[in-house]
Amino acid sequence: MIMDNRIIIDALTACDAVKFGDFTLSSGQKSNFYIDIKKASTDPKTLKIISEYIGKLIPSVISHSQKNSIIIGGVELGGVPIATAVSLETEYPLLIIRKEVKGYGTKSRYVGDLDLSKEIILMEDVTTSGGSVKKAIEALKEDGAKITKVVTIVDRESGATESLAELGVELIPLVRASELVKK
Amino acid sequence: MIMDNRIIIDALTACDAVKFGDFTLSSGQKSNFYIDIKKASTDPKTLKIISEYIGKLIPSVISHSQKNSIIIGGVELGGVPIATAVSLETEYPLLIIRKEVKGYGTKSRYVGDLDLSKEIILMEDVTTSGGSVKKAIEALKEDGAKITKVVTIVDRESGATESLAELGVELIPLVRASELVKK
Repeated sequence: MIMDNRIIIDALTACDAVKFGDFTLSSGQKSNFYIDIKKASTDPKTLKIISEYIGKLIPSVISHSQKNSIIIGGVELGGVPIATAVSLETEYPLLIIRKEVKGYGTKSRYVGDLDLSKEIILMEDVTTSGGSVKKAIEALKEDGAKITKVVTIVDRESGATESLAELGVELIPLVRASELVKK
Repeated sequence: MIMDNRIIIDALTACDAVKFGDFTLSSGQKSNFYIDIKKASTDPKTLKIISEYIGKLIPSVISHSQKNSIIIGGVELGGVPIATAVSLETEYPLLIIRKEVKGYGTKSRYVGDLDLSKEIILMEDVTTSGGSVKKAIEALKEDGAKITKVVTIVDRESGATESLAELGVELIPLVRASELVKK
């Protein structure tokens, strides 16, 4: 299923998560758009639009036999609001993956039930190189979890797709940076 | 308004967040119930029941003039799913308060817009002595934020009410540990 992502681009623009204009990024590079995805994940109307969209998207990326055995994962901290919203929307259980367990003592890396019989679909708000989500996937795979898909609201197209592909995981962006440039 | 919290106790029991029986706590104390609140915050049906309940509770604890100037806060990490769910339910914006900023470099203590003209109502999943929520309130107050109320799903009645009262903040528990004992 090809879904029209204009509703997402419009919602991101309306809440100022995406701004168009002349920007100089912290790297010194020029850009004609600027992404502040936290404005989307902390704005309930925008978060609702995004989670409803992902709720419709998920059945098209899983097999029919999987539909009762999905877990919605979110990596601390940026992925947690979007994962919570998608869990509420789809009624699939929520699993939070902590960034690092160093210094946490006996605390688990996970909040929620890591049910190895189910497939985890990870949610991210924004992906750049994919570094933090890659670490979470490696931890999940080490613990025997099944994960083949990551959904991200915006992919900056800076290596995340390739980086996750190395782990056999597909990155599914709702919006790609190049689509914002074209706007 | 007095709200009947039986629906919350039933929901917590149904998802195994509260178990009744003979338990020995890590402190060595005996208890006839056991609370694993993460089972509630990662189960979407339970989280939905709780957020709808809090959505009805909030208008009764704020003044009419405040109803358009509320922010729903959640302290990293336990408070984030419940705060996100209540933000979606009420359409009030979400603010996440990081636990500590040490080592975060230039990262802000907050995710979301700390609008000082609005009042923050903090959400917690469980309160014991109230230590972590107290630190978050102190940080918020230092930054000029207005906060007078914390809503917690379960209060273990181990000092949080008194600890927050010292800061002029009221703790509003949906369920108190003593109500579980009575069940």
